[in-house]
Amino acid sequence: MIIDKLFQQVANKGHVCVGLDTDYAYLPDTLKRQNANIEDAIFAFNTEIIQATLDVVACYKVQIAYYEALGVQGMRCYQRTLEYLRLHGAIVIADIKRGDIAKTAEMYARAHFTGDFEADFITVNPYMGLDTISPYIPYIQNNNKGIFALLRTSNAGSKDIECLLTDKGERVCDTVGRQIAQMGESLIGSCGYSALGGVVGCTFADEAKEMRKNLPTTFFLIPGYGAQGGKAEDIALCLHKGNGGVVNASRSILLAYKKIENGESNFAECARNEAIRMKNDILNAII
Amino acid sequence: MIIDKLFQQVANKGHVCVGLDTDYAYLPDTLKRQNANIEDAIFAFNTEIIQATLDVVACYKVQIAYYEALGVQGMRCYQRTLEYLRLHGAIVIADIKRGDIAKTAEMYARAHFTGDFEADFITVNPYMGLDTISPYIPYIQNNNKGIFALLRTSNAGSKDIECLLTDKGERVCDTVGRQIAQMGESLIGSCGYSALGGVVGCTFADEAKEMRKNLPTTFFLIPGYGAQGGKAEDIALCLHKGNGGVVNASRSILLAYKKIENGESNFAECARNEAIRMKNDILNAII
Repeated sequence: MIIDKLFQQVANKGHVCVGLDTDYAYLPDTLKRQNANIEDAIFAFNTEIIQATLDVVACYKVQIAYYEALGVQGMRCYQRTLEYLRLHGAIVIADIKRGDIAKTAEMYARAHFTGDFEADFITVNPYMGLDTISPYIPYIQNNNKGIFALLRTSNAGSKDIECLLTDKGERVCDTVGRQIAQMGESLIGSCGYSALGGVVGCTFADEAKEMRKNLPTTFFLIPGYGAQGGKAEDIALCLHKGNGGVVNASRSILLAYKKIENGESNFAECARNEAIRMKNDILNAII
Repeated sequence: MIIDKLFQQVANKGHVCVGLDTDYAYLPDTLKRQNANIEDAIFAFNTEIIQATLDVVACYKVQIAYYEALGVQGMRCYQRTLEYLRLHGAIVIADIKRGDIAKTAEMYARAHFTGDFEADFITVNPYMGLDTISPYIPYIQNNNKGIFALLRTSNAGSKDIECLLTDKGERVCDTVGRQIAQMGESLIGSCGYSALGGVVGCTFADEAKEMRKNLPTTFFLIPGYGAQGGKAEDIALCLHKGNGGVVNASRSILLAYKKIENGESNFAECARNEAIRMKNDILNAII
């Protein structure tokens, strides 16, 4: 199962998930000059980042919004990036946060678990209910796929809905977490985690600890490390025996070169060094 | 403002919103044979449906999932369909249900309010909080755009989160509705409705009536008519003085030809007839 592969990747290479939220503005000028168009330039940037980090990170998360923003050529670049990742055996999380029902959800499943935009995991938004998630289950069972449902995200606005208290005395995100865990019970791999995971930010450390305890079989995709304020010790609280989660970092890795003198010319190496620094930062916190 | 234009369209042409959720399987065989590839065939189908319904419907809703499912060529078809709609002066709602924060949300705004995939309205998913919506506001103000936030959808699963009771004694979807209405106060057009609208299904008629009362300035995008069980009388309860909402129908219009003998050869006329039937069905219920 893909969740076992992800678990193993974490055990072997640490918790870093490189976020390929690649804005054209992030690219070194030389790379912009070397490529005839935006699509090729971003793809070239992505491939260099991937090559430089493959052996030190657990997986990659590609944020589709950055590619959609470039229209059809952006979607081609998205397709090529996913293809390149799969070709190199990397685990790909498509951060698409889709959420729809019935035949529309089946179309999203087809879109992101097969064909041009095939990924290993996708993120999904559960607001409309569990019938937004059930259409993905056959792909988890038959095509070795997985999903991460939004539970408690790392943004300030998560208080507006996710943290509303229900009349049962639990927060909406806890209700969703419980439902997701139940739904994922039949999808648990040999690693002890389900292929139906959850997105849980590390910017509210006490809560994350509580969610880890309440959801022992739910693998976490963890945003919020670094610029958003989450620390390695906060990550440690989201894990169990040092596993059960991957930690996303995008700009800190993609733009690491900007903090290094003459970093432009070896931006990929700068990304690698930052990925290693982050990996060790987290590993040190869980020991 | 775009919301005033939509209001006027409803006043002039009724409440029908044609859902271009075009599955290749829906196409008549002749159309499949006439076109060299899936992209061209679906685009040809869409253009004929649009041409045949332009003067009898309020707007069009394009469900992006159906196009994403076809990969890059699907996204080209999506781009061409939106371009065609804009070229013919139609109001386009992109049913994308995106929901993300900060720079990612800005990228979604750029993706769907400018460039290849430009639409007039988009649907958004508010689960992560109001900061998933604020990045769209400048486009509403400066680019004459609008959004529909998911409130109470028409599916059975809407009970799982949308209808959870909060400790304040209201449902999650009512809390969201209130927040959206407040946020939309500064975006109200001369028609009395805000460019920040809501998705409210008509399959729970009593609730829809209540939401109409509680949200007097919120324009509704209404799913659930027809196959899902919503009736014209239920639609009437979602409206105020016969306006304030558009009603989506997809398969009943796109596949109307299948209910007519030899309908294949004039599928667009069949779609037109069904759109007119639906338009009159609703108009009769509100008189």
